[in-house]
Amino acid sequence: MSKIKLSALDTRAPKDLDKTATKEKTASYLEELDELQNLLFAEGKHSILVVIQGMDGSGKDGVIRNVLGNMNPQGVAVQSYKAPTEKELSHDFLWRIHQHTPARGMIQVFNRSHYEDILVTRVHKWCDDETARKRMDAINDFEKLLQQHNNTHILKFYLHVSPEEQHERLSERMKDPAKMWKYNEKDFAEAKLWDEYMEMYEECFEKCNQPEWIIVPADQNWYKEYVIAKALRDLMKELNMQFPGLKK
Amino acid sequence: MSKIKLSALDTRAPKDLDKTATKEKTASYLEELDELQNLLFAEGKHSILVVIQGMDGSGKDGVIRNVLGNMNPQGVAVQSYKAPTEKELSHDFLWRIHQHTPARGMIQVFNRSHYEDILVTRVHKWCDDETARKRMDAINDFEKLLQQHNNTHILKFYLHVSPEEQHERLSERMKDPAKMWKYNEKDFAEAKLWDEYMEMYEECFEKCNQPEWIIVPADQNWYKEYVIAKALRDLMKELNMQFPGLKK
Repeated sequence: MSKIKLSALDTRAPKDLDKTATKEKTASYLEELDELQNLLFAEGKHSILVVIQGMDGSGKDGVIRNVLGNMNPQGVAVQSYKAPTEKELSHDFLWRIHQHTPARGMIQVFNRSHYEDILVTRVHKWCDDETARKRMDAINDFEKLLQQHNNTHILKFYLHVSPEEQHERLSERMKDPAKMWKYNEKDFAEAKLWDEYMEMYEECFEKCNQPEWIIVPADQNWYKEYVIAKALRDLMKELNMQFPGLKK
Repeated sequence: MSKIKLSALDTRAPKDLDKTATKEKTASYLEELDELQNLLFAEGKHSILVVIQGMDGSGKDGVIRNVLGNMNPQGVAVQSYKAPTEKELSHDFLWRIHQHTPARGMIQVFNRSHYEDILVTRVHKWCDDETARKRMDAINDFEKLLQQHNNTHILKFYLHVSPEEQHERLSERMKDPAKMWKYNEKDFAEAKLWDEYMEMYEECFEKCNQPEWIIVPADQNWYKEYVIAKALRDLMKELNMQFPGLKK
């Protein structure tokens, strides 16, 4: 994979795409996903890990609610990773991650993830380049472990918003009473580090690419949800799962 | 490291070794260990993982009680790995292991370990050779993670008993009321698979050798305890730990 340049990639849907038709497709994928998740659970052979990364305001919560939250919650778990606790910091950086990897039959969603340990930490220089490279190697080994030893299929999504769209969304949080709880004045300070974040994301896409990242144009929620629903549905379709029949 | 041939290695102390003098040395190491463990805990920079493997009757429990149990239990944790539960089996084989790796400042003892997944499982053909090799790679990656990302120093001990000594100890379990609870008729069936176990152990010592295994002659408890106390003490001495002084 050649190095991705994020600033060269669209943050919006292709211009000629029909919004209504696309939303209808998304709805039909969501119906399929509900059935496929049931089959995944029943068969119990595979597991799925969905990693969702993106800048503040890129719409991670919305994707979780509208796409992944559409399936039976008994078979779908969401883990949000915030700043590590003191206890978590006294272990290797993957310790808190490994605890929440999916059992066979399950879909596990990570709202932020182990990738923060090579993103926010690098932007703020809490982690030097050499450590970051070792962490990337460790992440690759770790993802290989999950793939090879627990039939875990990994989908890594980067929600790609434009800085303009991000600014608008963060500003909304100051005005809309239903969004005020998400407002954090630090988000604006982080937003100023945009170029540094993009650089770290680009290196991460290049180095941790088994499987490759899916860059999701995320300025429009309807298109973002379509891309993610489709990717998950396509992956699950390919597993050729079967109901196991009566237990012997 | 050239391949170890277990049958060529002593299971007893060197013939000219003075038992009384050795026991005195062990006692002084145990005193040092108590202090070193306190320092490890206070400094909070390093962590230690002690893996104890060996055939039934090789004296794993005794080592844990007499050597590792000698230190402050607040800073030493023991995790015994038995046959995996259904929940554990629905995850990759290192999932249940990673949960119990040591926090910085701690000594963690594994009574049996992730190595069972390439030992008992192979002897009984529950795990084919290709899977076993992938597991060995995964184990090496995993131990590297702990070493590089949490200052974890790993000591891997194989308690090397002779089949004759093993037979005597297993037979004792049928006669001594204080040992009867350990008796399991299956142990004798396992003992018949001696050669297969030795072969699997030898491959494991060769392939998973970062750090190298310490083969402990284990027919005599006094010598086994000496070797283990010394190895742990030597390792901890080398860390050049310092009390951190007053917190700022």
